[in-house]
Amino acid sequence: MPKNRPSKVVLAYSGGLDTSAIAKWLQLEYACEVIAFTADLGQEDELDLARQRAEQLGIKQIYIEDLREEFVRAFVFPMLRANTVYEGEYMLGTAIARPLIAQRLVAIAEETGAEAIAHGATGKGNDQVRFELGAYALAPRIRVIAPWREWPYTSRTDLLKFCQEHGLNYAASGDSSRVYSIDANLFHTSYEGCELEDPSVAPDPKMWQRTVSPQMAPDVPTQIELQFSKGDPEQLNGQKMSPATLLAELNRLGGENGIGRLDLVENRYIGMKSRGCYETPGGTILLKARRAVEALTLDGRTAHLKDEWMPRYAEMIYNGNWWSPERRALQQMIDATQASVEGSVRLELYKGNVTVLGRASTQSLYDPHLATFEDSRERYNHKDAGGFIRLTALRFLTRDT
Amino acid sequence: MPKNRPSKVVLAYSGGLDTSAIAKWLQLEYACEVIAFTADLGQEDELDLARQRAEQLGIKQIYIEDLREEFVRAFVFPMLRANTVYEGEYMLGTAIARPLIAQRLVAIAEETGAEAIAHGATGKGNDQVRFELGAYALAPRIRVIAPWREWPYTSRTDLLKFCQEHGLNYAASGDSSRVYSIDANLFHTSYEGCELEDPSVAPDPKMWQRTVSPQMAPDVPTQIELQFSKGDPEQLNGQKMSPATLLAELNRLGGENGIGRLDLVENRYIGMKSRGCYETPGGTILLKARRAVEALTLDGRTAHLKDEWMPRYAEMIYNGNWWSPERRALQQMIDATQASVEGSVRLELYKGNVTVLGRASTQSLYDPHLATFEDSRERYNHKDAGGFIRLTALRFLTRDT
Amino acid sequence: MPKNRPSKVVLAYSGGLDTSAIAKWLQLEYACEVIAFTADLGQEDELDLARQRAEQLGIKQIYIEDLREEFVRAFVFPMLRANTVYEGEYMLGTAIARPLIAQRLVAIAEETGAEAIAHGATGKGNDQVRFELGAYALAPRIRVIAPWREWPYTSRTDLLKFCQEHGLNYAASGDSSRVYSIDANLFHTSYEGCELEDPSVAPDPKMWQRTVSPQMAPDVPTQIELQFSKGDPEQLNGQKMSPATLLAELNRLGGENGIGRLDLVENRYIGMKSRGCYETPGGTILLKARRAVEALTLDGRTAHLKDEWMPRYAEMIYNGNWWSPERRALQQMIDATQASVEGSVRLELYKGNVTVLGRASTQSLYDPHLATFEDSRERYNHKDAGGFIRLTALRFLTRDT
Amino acid sequence: MPKNRPSKVVLAYSGGLDTSAIAKWLQLEYACEVIAFTADLGQEDELDLARQRAEQLGIKQIYIEDLREEFVRAFVFPMLRANTVYEGEYMLGTAIARPLIAQRLVAIAEETGAEAIAHGATGKGNDQVRFELGAYALAPRIRVIAPWREWPYTSRTDLLKFCQEHGLNYAASGDSSRVYSIDANLFHTSYEGCELEDPSVAPDPKMWQRTVSPQMAPDVPTQIELQFSKGDPEQLNGQKMSPATLLAELNRLGGENGIGRLDLVENRYIGMKSRGCYETPGGTILLKARRAVEALTLDGRTAHLKDEWMPRYAEMIYNGNWWSPERRALQQMIDATQASVEGSVRLELYKGNVTVLGRASTQSLYDPHLATFEDSRERYNHKDAGGFIRLTALRFLTRDT
Repeated sequence: MPKNRPSKVVLAYSGGLDTSAIAKWLQLEYACEVIAFTADLGQEDELDLARQRAEQLGIKQIYIEDLREEFVRAFVFPMLRANTVYEGEYMLGTAIARPLIAQRLVAIAEETGAEAIAHGATGKGNDQVRFELGAYALAPRIRVIAPWREWPYTSRTDLLKFCQEHGLNYAASGDSSRVYSIDANLFHTSYEGCELEDPSVAPDPKMWQRTVSPQMAPDVPTQIELQFSKGDPEQLNGQKMSPATLLAELNRLGGENGIGRLDLVENRYIGMKSRGCYETPGGTILLKARRAVEALTLDGRTAHLKDEWMPRYAEMIYNGNWWSPERRALQQMIDATQASVEGSVRLELYKGNVTVLGRASTQSLYDPHLATFEDSRERYNHKDAGGFIRLTALRFLTRDT
Repeated sequence: MPKNRPSKVVLAYSGGLDTSAIAKWLQLEYACEVIAFTADLGQEDELDLARQRAEQLGIKQIYIEDLREEFVRAFVFPMLRANTVYEGEYMLGTAIARPLIAQRLVAIAEETGAEAIAHGATGKGNDQVRFELGAYALAPRIRVIAPWREWPYTSRTDLLKFCQEHGLNYAASGDSSRVYSIDANLFHTSYEGCELEDPSVAPDPKMWQRTVSPQMAPDVPTQIELQFSKGDPEQLNGQKMSPATLLAELNRLGGENGIGRLDLVENRYIGMKSRGCYETPGGTILLKARRAVEALTLDGRTAHLKDEWMPRYAEMIYNGNWWSPERRALQQMIDATQASVEGSVRLELYKGNVTVLGRASTQSLYDPHLATFEDSRERYNHKDAGGFIRLTALRFLTRDT
Repeated sequence: MPKNRPSKVVLAYSGGLDTSAIAKWLQLEYACEVIAFTADLGQEDELDLARQRAEQLGIKQIYIEDLREEFVRAFVFPMLRANTVYEGEYMLGTAIARPLIAQRLVAIAEETGAEAIAHGATGKGNDQVRFELGAYALAPRIRVIAPWREWPYTSRTDLLKFCQEHGLNYAASGDSSRVYSIDANLFHTSYEGCELEDPSVAPDPKMWQRTVSPQMAPDVPTQIELQFSKGDPEQLNGQKMSPATLLAELNRLGGENGIGRLDLVENRYIGMKSRGCYETPGGTILLKARRAVEALTLDGRTAHLKDEWMPRYAEMIYNGNWWSPERRALQQMIDATQASVEGSVRLELYKGNVTVLGRASTQSLYDPHLATFEDSRERYNHKDAGGFIRLTALRFLTRDT
Repeated sequence: MPKNRPSKVVLAYSGGLDTSAIAKWLQLEYACEVIAFTADLGQEDELDLARQRAEQLGIKQIYIEDLREEFVRAFVFPMLRANTVYEGEYMLGTAIARPLIAQRLVAIAEETGAEAIAHGATGKGNDQVRFELGAYALAPRIRVIAPWREWPYTSRTDLLKFCQEHGLNYAASGDSSRVYSIDANLFHTSYEGCELEDPSVAPDPKMWQRTVSPQMAPDVPTQIELQFSKGDPEQLNGQKMSPATLLAELNRLGGENGIGRLDLVENRYIGMKSRGCYETPGGTILLKARRAVEALTLDGRTAHLKDEWMPRYAEMIYNGNWWSPERRALQQMIDATQASVEGSVRLELYKGNVTVLGRASTQSLYDPHLATFEDSRERYNHKDAGGFIRLTALRFLTRDT
């Protein structure tokens, strides 16, 4: 038994096999009280089952919290303000949920006087880093227990056996080697493992839970209109909606139209490549729509700076640095650019495609009289372009004199 | 008549109304010999017509050059090595053709002893900048004549009248206010003007020349396989092809499957926003395929640096700085990363979608034993992750002491 | 006479030959009322002479404003928060004054109903860009008159003649070809022209107005202590001072000790290189002191991001984009990093050297127990470093499997 | 005894207490043959003593290599091409030596069939990371032994006792708590520990080994001239010198004139802040001189890109990623910019100051006719600046329409 063992530990608890085994193991190994925290981030887990199992484990303090609105409002939308994608394609649906869970874990630890938090992330993934960096950034004195890095078990088979030995009779969900490792929330669903371990093999079409394939999507396009304010979507088809409601509705529309699937080999923070599949139907629509509104309303040089800094911002989130001072400082800059980003976008959703049909804004910086071919001699004189070019080229002209 | 008038001028000549008028105007205004240069970049113009009209204009030196292979090999492919897109979406199909035209213009000027070059780009667009910066960077003593910034004409109607007055009887191609401004080459086709001037209006479906709409594309997917070497595509479906041949074939496949349309409001270098539509069928396939090969074979941190620098690189190309020292230096870095970027990608093309089915490479850095959940205790010890995280978090821990 | 001539023009007026000639020329050429604006930015011009000459020119509305505190508080200090230097060495003393002048010019234009502003910057320098971009960013409808780009005069000799012809008998200040072009304010003094035009020649020692040479500085060092709060200096030697007072005092101390001279070839925005000499005594001390406080109190990764973005920020200021949306957004990020940047620094000033003697802060993130060689086993376990390194190296290890 | 123990280990051996104890400990703990490698990087250690002690330890294979020229030519000079400083001030003198040592260690391991390398860097510093990342990048299958992270000893007192117990009677060099931790090579000397652990305290003046204080430096300035070719210094005062000779001579001149001292709190890669003092006399002169030549000969935009990328490049070197693919790729870009960086710089060295007296180059891009006030109407027309500014400002003008 480790010395200085904590008397109370807050566990990020899903009700599944892994975190149930962890709860029991913590009770045995650390002889501590386990406090269960289950976040409803829209993952559509059975929250009642989580409560039941927690009670069955003898857990007295059970926190089950509906965080869907906060998740979308304070994490997903701020991230989208940077048009954030990791490695050109991944919309960071898992990474963006971790900081909120870390925040609640340390807050509950403070409320309950727990000295430690625990999580069920493995020792090879990104999530351990995200949970732990988040926790340390918010509560430097917190202690983090990561059972997958401590205990002797190395597979789900081991865990099933451990549970059975301790009177926890969970049905094995089929052959564990054939079960994807899945993470889901209101923003996305991710898949790892099974046939995905071979990047030359396409995923089993039955894997996808959230979207139909483009082939199976309707033959008739769906048209929608999104209204943005300060960079965030506020209305769908003329109806004002809360962040989580709007995202859920976009997920439904995107999912029906085969939108938002991604099959990716990515670089984990901890140095290895991994292969994952992702479904982000609503997010994929929002990214296209947001770019269309920004294109109309955001100053060009500001937009370019955002594009340049985005990969670093995405990396910060992917690597678990949401709560770091540099991410917070960068967010100030991103948010400062969004004051004028408002307007509406009409989109067509059709078999995996999101097509912009039109965009309009009272904050538009587009001026047809400036851009078009035919004459307009007021703010813009064609001859000015000659001077502009000659001065821009001046650095070349000194080379030959 | 301007003093110090050039005796010979090399004109980027398409055979169309604008550049024919320019040829005549140069002959009259500058009393100079005009040399016509027509580049075949795969734009499918009638090159014979260009020659005929040049002869009709009394031009004696007519250069018509098939530059398709050089265009793809030395411009399009190097640009793609950076996974280059401008403002998140535009594949720079017009911008990447201009440096080659500029290069040939100044080379022909040197060959023929011409003191000046001339082009038909208007005074409001990006292309004047690209032609002229390119020319000055390559030949600092060259003189550039940009008739659209000099002459009194401001519309196609004016030009038709000018041509008629000088015995050049070109048929007006319909109402000029209803004609898109189009640029095409082997990489893309772009459209500006007409209804596109209003960004809230979708383009007329009849505008698109190169792709069918996703709705009109076949109901059966097309599978292809691309093989890359040093970052460039070398084989399609097992067949080695020259760069231009391969791109043309991808254009055909992409076009048939509704791939590569884009409707964009963008920021021109010269400070205004403009709205354009683009078709880049082959390029869109290549971008997706290249990312898949890089994901497997490129070191993660190197990939992130490429992503960070890409927006600046795209800006350099968009702004006409292909021949600048900074673009050339940056290209050295990009190319240096591509040595190991080889392997094959299988793709499905279906109604606007490009989906990766699988990728494989002898240079793969993906190692399933490292990435997967189940045990492997050789290079990676789960406990190492604890040390990694504690040191990564150390900067946060000093905050509370 | 230009059509649509403005009825009133606000002129950035120094009282010197150039802007006096401009005032007269505007009255004649534009037949407009000239409003004189003279900013006291600490340049130690004779403000009474400016008033006298303005009156002599028949100017009725004369604004002479003491902007020293605003200049330092709202421009110099915010710029220093980024440890800003242009091209590795120049502290931007001229560039940082222009946005304030532009701001006041357009504000006075609005107050007085003037349609235009005018300035005396030449057509080859950076300042024309800075005045005009600043004015347009703040007041898009303003009109800017830049006489040096309009009138036929090309030298001070021409201006003297013009003035004499119009009854303005200013004494020629020696041979104009032997007079440096000088810009001064509370932050710095700059010199161009004369022997400086040859970059192989050292400046005449008599040129420098604000600092003694290191050789002439005292043989005994001066020790000072600076106290910072939120990134800005607040106290000197234990005494709280206003921004302008503190900077003036540092200028005195730095100047006496031979600190802050710079001899530089720099790249102007408009494409040519130029050679200038600069004196920034107080700024040089502040830069060293600020870095010392940041080193102790700023999170390391945040500090690195600031360092990465600084060159762009410096470029924005140098190029006249202080009032642009991107500089404002970036400032949000910079300022957000400064909350914890407080503490005191002791410095030694001696013959051109600024040496840090010590620094201390209640916000210090330095922890001797973590950093030193001897044992401390609490937050940091030497074995953690092994895990950290193995995971950091993991990307290399996949290369050989 | 660890299983799979290596039969041979190449040790980075200095002949000092620490690495002698390590040699003995490896022989005992791993029962392996120790191969000693001592690099002469100009640190002025007694190499004979190293050989004697190695022999006394029973080491049969002893590699003592004079790497001074390679160190300067292939590491120091390439790094300087980027005007590299870490955190605004540190010239990376320790960091730049480690990759060469790592390279030789793994090369000797390959030559001798050793399975492992070992080093004497502690578990809290940067050097362990630099040695090990370098080794893994060059030889992914190498094994690294870091005794300071393995053995039970935590202080020099422990090591002295261990050595005495094993018949190695080294004189204790005074009270170990009063001995600085010093690293020296031809480029710099660094100091840590003792009174430096308190960042509010100035270093003992007797600490510095390589430079006199500005106060003690001669009252008469020294003038020198440096000639650069492709970005590297080639001649000093008209005399061509090898890289190491030239740097040694600049160290002498800089040291005599009190140049190149630095007292810094810095951020280590492994998350804590540390305080160090540095002497880099020759490097400080070279940095100033190089910037002067680049200012004259390097295209402005290229120079700006170099400045933007430098902090990342410095971070790569500081963090031990010299041999990473991203540093190598970035070096390609840096080197590509240096083709035209040649010319001469005259400098004055005086009591800590390095002052540029003049610079000249056949590759100069400075053109006095372009930069100066007086008239020159050929390549540059003042009116062009109006067009340049109007187009540059255009993005602001659309805001008010």
